[in-house]
Amino acid sequence: MNVGDLGEFGLIERLRGILPPSGDERLIVGIGDDAAVWRSGDRYVIATTDTMVEGVHFLREHAAWQDVGWKALAVNVSDIAAMGGVSTFALVTLALPPDTPVDALDGVYEGLGACASLFSVTVAGGDIVRSGEFAITVALAGEARTGADGAPLLLRRSGGRAGDVVAVTGTLGGAAGGLRVLREHRPTSDAARALVERQVRPHARLHEANAAVDAGVRCGIDVSDGLVQDLGHVCEASGLDAEVWLDRLPVDPALREGFPDDAAMMAATGGEDYELLLAAPEEIIERLSGEFEIPLTVVGRLVDGASHTVRVLDADGLRVDVGAGGWDHFGGADG
Amino acid sequence: MNVGDLGEFGLIERLRGILPPSGDERLIVGIGDDAAVWRSGDRYVIATTDTMVEGVHFLREHAAWQDVGWKALAVNVSDIAAMGGVSTFALVTLALPPDTPVDALDGVYEGLGACASLFSVTVAGGDIVRSGEFAITVALAGEARTGADGAPLLLRRSGGRAGDVVAVTGTLGGAAGGLRVLREHRPTSDAARALVERQVRPHARLHEANAAVDAGVRCGIDVSDGLVQDLGHVCEASGLDAEVWLDRLPVDPALREGFPDDAAMMAATGGEDYELLLAAPEEIIERLSGEFEIPLTVVGRLVDGASHTVRVLDADGLRVDVGAGGWDHFGGADG
Repeated sequence: MNVGDLGEFGLIERLRGILPPSGDERLIVGIGDDAAVWRSGDRYVIATTDTMVEGVHFLREHAAWQDVGWKALAVNVSDIAAMGGVSTFALVTLALPPDTPVDALDGVYEGLGACASLFSVTVAGGDIVRSGEFAITVALAGEARTGADGAPLLLRRSGGRAGDVVAVTGTLGGAAGGLRVLREHRPTSDAARALVERQVRPHARLHEANAAVDAGVRCGIDVSDGLVQDLGHVCEASGLDAEVWLDRLPVDPALREGFPDDAAMMAATGGEDYELLLAAPEEIIERLSGEFEIPLTVVGRLVDGASHTVRVLDADGLRVDVGAGGWDHFGGADG
Repeated sequence: MNVGDLGEFGLIERLRGILPPSGDERLIVGIGDDAAVWRSGDRYVIATTDTMVEGVHFLREHAAWQDVGWKALAVNVSDIAAMGGVSTFALVTLALPPDTPVDALDGVYEGLGACASLFSVTVAGGDIVRSGEFAITVALAGEARTGADGAPLLLRRSGGRAGDVVAVTGTLGGAAGGLRVLREHRPTSDAARALVERQVRPHARLHEANAAVDAGVRCGIDVSDGLVQDLGHVCEASGLDAEVWLDRLPVDPALREGFPDDAAMMAATGGEDYELLLAAPEEIIERLSGEFEIPLTVVGRLVDGASHTVRVLDADGLRVDVGAGGWDHFGGADG
């Protein structure tokens, strides 16, 4: 058996089983959430890492090097925000073929630096290794917000309760649309350019995630693998089922313009939007919605159930099959 | 110009210059030491990362997969020890060709888990990505020891003072000897096996590094690139020159047996021993020497000077040319 047969999530479970159990009582969140959390003195460190490999996560002919650097950091900032925390320090690893042009790396670091400035992250170290293919790995640390009693305030996948509404920030499907534009070499239009921008320059919903934690939300995840798949992670971790209402999804307007027939399904399953998904009592979501400068849209609900999966329903309440739905980082293909 | 022309250290300097300056006053040690250090509440986090790429840092036909996993973590534990700290939590990133056998990964995690147990590290998360070649990246966090006033007690490259003696733990050159055995397919002997063991199963001098910090040592580095090169980093950071006495080096006995003609030079320049290099007043080193269960050998001295380089001297006090001397992670070849 090889790793391609097992898939990303099967592999994670298998490898987790091989490691010795941790007896470290400082560990608050281990393998299986957006980021790890541990206690360090009077604070809680949040840490995550994400790798982009040329040819898998981006193509040189599609992405400006500045965008590669930006995205490599932004997706990690999004993971820490999706735990409720604030990013602080990053370690950056470059795997480089010896013939990589120095200009390209300058570009990567310009983009990474711009993202670091925006989110107040300091690059504190890293590693450079020779490799057959270009890859950039960012390991990012941050801190959790804490309550008056000093306990960490986190957005956990496992924090959902039956009856919570499910809401997402911003719009969905744009990044998947951008990938499709890049792959199909569509003629340039404003909509196509907007979609590509969503794909290559993701933002992290830091402000919104911090506000959600402060408002009492305790369940969240960033939409990196696609709404259905990421909400599925919440279902598994919270021991609940979920309904998603397809006609309520905040579909990216450029996606609706560019791919009208597929837009709703792409919004349901497309990865890499890096919007924030929250599950909380409806009144909290309503209050937050009034505070945010971007839309916060209720798209579904957590319900009791035994399957711990997501049911996507159309406007008539009929179930829609979205297939495997979402991004398998290891398989690297839309399901 | 491509990155191969610039070399590892030139590249690090160039990229550091592109990043925006950090205004974060919590940063204590940034790019350019064994690990980064920052303040988090009442503690000091130490963080480092290191990548092993198949075909560059190990060959599948030479290394058992268990050894790959062990070494991937051990070299990071060594970096944090060489700052004076204790490791706590790790993030592990696997870059995998889809045809990687699952058995191989089981082996990697068995070795990594054994090393984690030995050094009380918990794997708290990570990432798995598809890739054309196998690579494993460990990002490791730890904590600094602190003094009675709460200030961090660190081993810094910049902590050397003129007149300090330079001492190393254990023996040198064994790992380079092991690499040579593997490359030359030498017939197996006890000495050859011992050298290979040094190469594929490095240890981290955690106990000794912590004891050194407690004894008042403030300058240290681990011998990963080779004694001359790593001491050169201390010279640059401390603004001093150094002398190394070739006949005083604690040459690995198996190296002396296996490669008698080259053993001393290999001990001076060979990388990956992961011994601890300390620079401190002689009386502190003498005291520590009595406490350690492994040898702590004085091999040279820090002296005032303008070149900030290392002079290797033979038994007659004559200078020995060791060439470029050491390992360039990017160039990937002994100098």
